[in-house]
Amino acid sequence: MTVRLTRRYGFAASHRLHSRALSDEENRRTYGKCNNPHGHGHNYEIEITVRGEVNRVTGRLVELGRLDRIAEEQILRPLRYRNLNEEVPVFRELVPTTENLAAELDRRLRSAWPEVFPEGGPVLEKLRILETERNICEINHA
Amino acid sequence: MTVRLTRRYGFAASHRLHSRALSDEENRRTYGKCNNPHGHGHNYEIEITVRGEVNRVTGRLVELGRLDRIAEEQILRPLRYRNLNEEVPVFRELVPTTENLAAELDRRLRSAWPEVFPEGGPVLEKLRILETERNICEINHA
Amino acid sequence: MTVRLTRRYGFAASHRLHSRALSDEENRRTYGKCNNPHGHGHNYEIEITVRGEVNRVTGRLVELGRLDRIAEEQILRPLRYRNLNEEVPVFRELVPTTENLAAELDRRLRSAWPEVFPEGGPVLEKLRILETERNICEINHA
Amino acid sequence: MTVRLTRRYGFAASHRLHSRALSDEENRRTYGKCNNPHGHGHNYEIEITVRGEVNRVTGRLVELGRLDRIAEEQILRPLRYRNLNEEVPVFRELVPTTENLAAELDRRLRSAWPEVFPEGGPVLEKLRILETERNICEINHA
Amino acid sequence: MTVRLTRRYGFAASHRLHSRALSDEENRRTYGKCNNPHGHGHNYEIEITVRGEVNRVTGRLVELGRLDRIAEEQILRPLRYRNLNEEVPVFRELVPTTENLAAELDRRLRSAWPEVFPEGGPVLEKLRILETERNICEINHA
Amino acid sequence: MTVRLTRRYGFAASHRLHSRALSDEENRRTYGKCNNPHGHGHNYEIEITVRGEVNRVTGRLVELGRLDRIAEEQILRPLRYRNLNEEVPVFRELVPTTENLAAELDRRLRSAWPEVFPEGGPVLEKLRILETERNICEINHA
Repeated sequence: MTVRLTRRYGFAASHRLHSRALSDEENRRTYGKCNNPHGHGHNYEIEITVRGEVNRVTGRLVELGRLDRIAEEQILRPLRYRNLNEEVPVFRELVPTTENLAAELDRRLRSAWPEVFPEGGPVLEKLRILETERNICEINHA
Repeated sequence: MTVRLTRRYGFAASHRLHSRALSDEENRRTYGKCNNPHGHGHNYEIEITVRGEVNRVTGRLVELGRLDRIAEEQILRPLRYRNLNEEVPVFRELVPTTENLAAELDRRLRSAWPEVFPEGGPVLEKLRILETERNICEINHA
Repeated sequence: MTVRLTRRYGFAASHRLHSRALSDEENRRTYGKCNNPHGHGHNYEIEITVRGEVNRVTGRLVELGRLDRIAEEQILRPLRYRNLNEEVPVFRELVPTTENLAAELDRRLRSAWPEVFPEGGPVLEKLRILETERNICEINHA
Repeated sequence: MTVRLTRRYGFAASHRLHSRALSDEENRRTYGKCNNPHGHGHNYEIEITVRGEVNRVTGRLVELGRLDRIAEEQILRPLRYRNLNEEVPVFRELVPTTENLAAELDRRLRSAWPEVFPEGGPVLEKLRILETERNICEINHA
Repeated sequence: MTVRLTRRYGFAASHRLHSRALSDEENRRTYGKCNNPHGHGHNYEIEITVRGEVNRVTGRLVELGRLDRIAEEQILRPLRYRNLNEEVPVFRELVPTTENLAAELDRRLRSAWPEVFPEGGPVLEKLRILETERNICEINHA
Repeated sequence: MTVRLTRRYGFAASHRLHSRALSDEENRRTYGKCNNPHGHGHNYEIEITVRGEVNRVTGRLVELGRLDRIAEEQILRPLRYRNLNEEVPVFRELVPTTENLAAELDRRLRSAWPEVFPEGGPVLEKLRILETERNICEINHA
């Protein structure tokens, strides 16, 4: 029996899909209107799923305050109302597709995890981004 | 190839997060405003997922009438418009967090399963509770 | 041409539908399971709609910070994670139906309005409560 | 008896809230993080409501093809995946708040209406923009 | 100050858009794929809005049981899982567009109203149908 | 670390649940009102989930244009505004339950996959159908 807890958070940001490794023509073909030089944006929704044991005393799998804090510090504060290409260093090189954004957010949570959960804490299993309700990317560490 | 069917149901209930094993101060620190002595409530949504073979004659993985009946009898009728702490015996001791509620609902379905599906029936694989759209717990029996 | 701005906010609370002016039998007949003595709860969503002129300099009909503050102070802080019958004085007498709750929230906003918008501000036109997605009450001051 | 038909459409775009008539400090105070120089974005949803007579032969209040076409030509094609400040001329001067965006979209529909509905057509009564599910602006021509 | 209460209900049904007063070619041009001879269907959602006085004793604008009953008897029972063209007499002649369906449901509620609310009851102000989340019709009796 | 991308699409269709291998009485007992001879319909939503490597140059796990094309050609174009029993050959024999429909859509995607992704492409892992928000079937190829 496995227990998982998922918290959902939202933030608005903008981005432009453009790869330095592609010609202008290839960029247009690959990303269509999302390659528009001035960028566009989304109301991103993210879901963080953790897995673990339920504490018998608190009835909690994870301290929600700590989970909310790591989400706030690593994801929401640095990305909320931001331009991903201009203000998130990794996206100066990397194209901020849903896939690359999911990987970056996952990397951020993982690197901050030991500090927020020094005693171990629950397993960070899955990070899911809904760029829109119809385009969703998920990173899973089984 | 695995086939799963999920049915979603909703009910409104109230609860208070308070652990007898914690001091008042610890309770406040652990549960914040959810520790408020008079309780509060939610529109809970639950999802029951079963896995199995699709019957060739009916095209169904599970008789929906039976699945709806077990949900009604084990979960909806006893919890709908109820105070979980006061009216669901297990929560006199246990804190009715989303995690503990999910485990209790899962236990109820499992214990009634053989009577409703005496011939075996589909595998009860997952129970998911959405306390709000942003706080979700899932019990999974792989 | 009329311009309106609507902000949506959410809070979880519990209540019991029971009228002191009715017998127990009448209460049960009137409110059904919602009359359950221990109460139940909801994820309430509220929408506040204001009407007015758009400021040419800011492009805003209302300062969002002020609208959010009046919602926080008058509604969210006092009601979030609360038991309406026990913790909101007016509901010691009044039954906290969606209708009475809407009227109370409307009254609170209206009485605090002149202090938050001393210069006049936009017209508070409508308050809407979604107790669930299927039961909605609206107070409108045309 | 009044009959209204509403169609909903969506598009993703980016914007920055910044008024030339305000100092940098005033801009920050007025728009908060939405004043971030690099901009951010949203999945905008718009609703167009028309009012009129139902045609006895077709059972329609408006030819949906024509309504979809005017929405596509006036709103979706020019704004989809665009930066409102940079690519929509009126927002070089005007701050692209939800209010100003609603007024601009309403103006566009109204100015193209006689060409798409030369015989008169239904009355364009209302335009509604959901910048997020929690921030909504509506222009109404009663 | 006006108080309104809205209840939302859902039902699945099928229909075909085809007008006897039009040629086959005109039908195709008018309704596109919705003219497909074998029909298609929707998960219809309807909202019934009533307006009136809140009863001081019960805190209710309308007895929900009676409102639910009139919705069940006049709309849900006769239309749920039905083919509108074949099983709802008025649609043998009339095209079951969202507009005509809204008018028919409104007519049904109005004709049954005096029997369910012989003492007068609240005013039936508005009936709204969401054929999909993007195509909505509303009948309003101001 | 596994990366998945999910795209959601919608279409409206009608169907009737009736098995040739069952008597009329058994059909009514098995499918209830869904056995109504004239059929009914739904706004179906489907989700296609693929798994694979993210391309370093494009930042994409799959070319969205190709995924949208296979969904359009295999599912949306042939099923949109259709009667499943009458117009989708396999459902002349098979009952178009959510389970059988999921299997059929999965089969269609799989059989067209090599042509659309001749170089291999991502793994088609999961197909999910939401017949309504409360009845969901999923086919999973782990």
